[in-house]
Amino acid sequence: MADSRPPAKPMTYAGAGVDIDAGDRMVNLIEHHMRRTYGPRVLGKHGAFAGCFRLDFNERLFQRNYRDPVLVSCTDGVGTKVKLAAQMNIHDTVGQDLVAMNVNDLIVQGAEPLFFLDYIGIHKLTPELAAAIVKGVADGCELAGCALLGGETAEMPDVYAEGDFDLAGFAVGVCEMNRMIDGSRTEPGDVILGLASSGVHSNGYSLVRAVIKEAGLDLNKVYDELETDEPLGRVLLEPTRIYAKSVVSTLRHYTVKQVVSAMSHITGGGMVDNIPRTLGDTLDAVIDRKSWDVPPIFKLLQQRGNVEEDEMLRVFNMGVGYILTVRPYFAEAIADRLAKAGETVYRLGELVPGSGEVKFR
Amino acid sequence: MADSRPPAKPMTYAGAGVDIDAGDRMVNLIEHHMRRTYGPRVLGKHGAFAGCFRLDFNERLFQRNYRDPVLVSCTDGVGTKVKLAAQMNIHDTVGQDLVAMNVNDLIVQGAEPLFFLDYIGIHKLTPELAAAIVKGVADGCELAGCALLGGETAEMPDVYAEGDFDLAGFAVGVCEMNRMIDGSRTEPGDVILGLASSGVHSNGYSLVRAVIKEAGLDLNKVYDELETDEPLGRVLLEPTRIYAKSVVSTLRHYTVKQVVSAMSHITGGGMVDNIPRTLGDTLDAVIDRKSWDVPPIFKLLQQRGNVEEDEMLRVFNMGVGYILTVRPYFAEAIADRLAKAGETVYRLGELVPGSGEVKFR
Repeated sequence: MADSRPPAKPMTYAGAGVDIDAGDRMVNLIEHHMRRTYGPRVLGKHGAFAGCFRLDFNERLFQRNYRDPVLVSCTDGVGTKVKLAAQMNIHDTVGQDLVAMNVNDLIVQGAEPLFFLDYIGIHKLTPELAAAIVKGVADGCELAGCALLGGETAEMPDVYAEGDFDLAGFAVGVCEMNRMIDGSRTEPGDVILGLASSGVHSNGYSLVRAVIKEAGLDLNKVYDELETDEPLGRVLLEPTRIYAKSVVSTLRHYTVKQVVSAMSHITGGGMVDNIPRTLGDTLDAVIDRKSWDVPPIFKLLQQRGNVEEDEMLRVFNMGVGYILTVRPYFAEAIADRLAKAGETVYRLGELVPGSGEVKFR
Repeated sequence: MADSRPPAKPMTYAGAGVDIDAGDRMVNLIEHHMRRTYGPRVLGKHGAFAGCFRLDFNERLFQRNYRDPVLVSCTDGVGTKVKLAAQMNIHDTVGQDLVAMNVNDLIVQGAEPLFFLDYIGIHKLTPELAAAIVKGVADGCELAGCALLGGETAEMPDVYAEGDFDLAGFAVGVCEMNRMIDGSRTEPGDVILGLASSGVHSNGYSLVRAVIKEAGLDLNKVYDELETDEPLGRVLLEPTRIYAKSVVSTLRHYTVKQVVSAMSHITGGGMVDNIPRTLGDTLDAVIDRKSWDVPPIFKLLQQRGNVEEDEMLRVFNMGVGYILTVRPYFAEAIADRLAKAGETVYRLGELVPGSGEVKFR
């Protein structure tokens, strides 16, 4: 064996496939995207090993000191939606999905998003491709009102196949301790409001892709039943809606009364699994099946894939991406406020005594 | 084409390859690992969509309120070290690497690590395998004194090949605004202290793996020159040392004087690239090549791979994983303190007027 014989030509890091220049080029391409998400709370430190974010300003003009701050944090990816993006060669939309999946989880606890970081694992670092992904992340951060504080791009040709990549995101928010929302205040009679989703969002793509394959659907074809000029692949890549600004501004409006008793981000598991996460075990959510519009994309997937109704409701958001349960007296005012902030609001049903389940009627 | 013909058998999420039960089993397996990293600042919320961490305690006993808190945050992976772990079928060590790569970056700014989150992208969710990875992450969090606040495991058989996975980590720390360290206080005459690494840490594995392949090294063989009974693969998987506790306790000891002028975590780029990141452009770091011990693993890689000395110094930590530049008057006291905290400390050299370069002599 060659065991004891060193290679004649000196080995180098570059020779092992790591292109440091490409990394530098990428940094140049993404810097302005990161900067447009910065507010005065981001501290720019040259050569910093980590991003720095000032929690409070002691200056009188900017003061919004927290008495008892709770940091709220979560991580998530966008699942196999990345595979669809790679297939369609559209890379500037999944970044928004990544931010959405995380900040929509943060705000459930009543938190205000502060900052975000992204991790990109990729076969080969094409600066332009990675920059397109980060552009989408920055778009999402702007929509969420948080700073893109840092990120990492790891080139790993032996882990990711050619053209493939994966995304992970991390979000941090803050909430005043006594304003946290954890569902412990839910009561019978609370009204369930649903906010419209922008499409499939970022869950269930393994089933989506299986249906496409099984039913022989064409990602580049325009399907009449989707009621749009966009091809199927574009409709499926529609970025996940970010509910942060509308929800946070609504919560802020009610500074004394706590009118929102619980919230849920509708992700994998659909309404069936996600609403009970904040319900407790003495209430049921009764939801009127006709109270919201199911977007055409779900009807196409259900019909072409011969997917049963129950399975659809358990895998997809079916048109409702975010849920708030609110005190009945305030329901209409809150719905109006959310609608004015740009949301499509459905009055889905109410909470009744029960055992922590969702019941469709 | 099958375009208009839905499959006869109803399609399901499980049928598309997503095993929800495996996810539940994994949650059961990792819960006690997460719990052992919890302190009183972690708020346990059943069904929470995000992890919650209390920044301060207003209660008198626990009060350590920050006057002007800066949140410090970063994200990193462990590079192709995951590939080596997969190859060796050893999964409970790379989690510590993941924590190390992140918290060692955090503390460079003077921050105290608060909490950590991990993302695992994997071909197939074997609960036991994923739990082994998370066990390593929890080990790392205990060593760093931070809470493992959350995580996500994404099963993506179409992105990751069989047996493969990737890891991304995310750390958040806090620093008092006027105690931040950014290298702006460095002065000529400052002494450069180096802390010994535990081995290759988590950088340069693309070159490591190229050398192994090119020189025909055997991961399962014990090499005499490594001066250990452990096979090469085990030596290469030695987890990255976590410097958080010793560095943070040293910084905390000097509450008034700011005796540490800059720090660097030695990662990709070695001392050559990482020390200048906090030097500024009017100082050089002069380092005595004989002032520290180069561990046997680097000598083996250099010799078997015929890698030039300069390249070694630019890719690997070469035995020094962390750098502090300190005021000369305090150098010995700080070195003693770090040694008592368990570090092997080298006095590497000093800062001199220059242009932001590292010069070996």
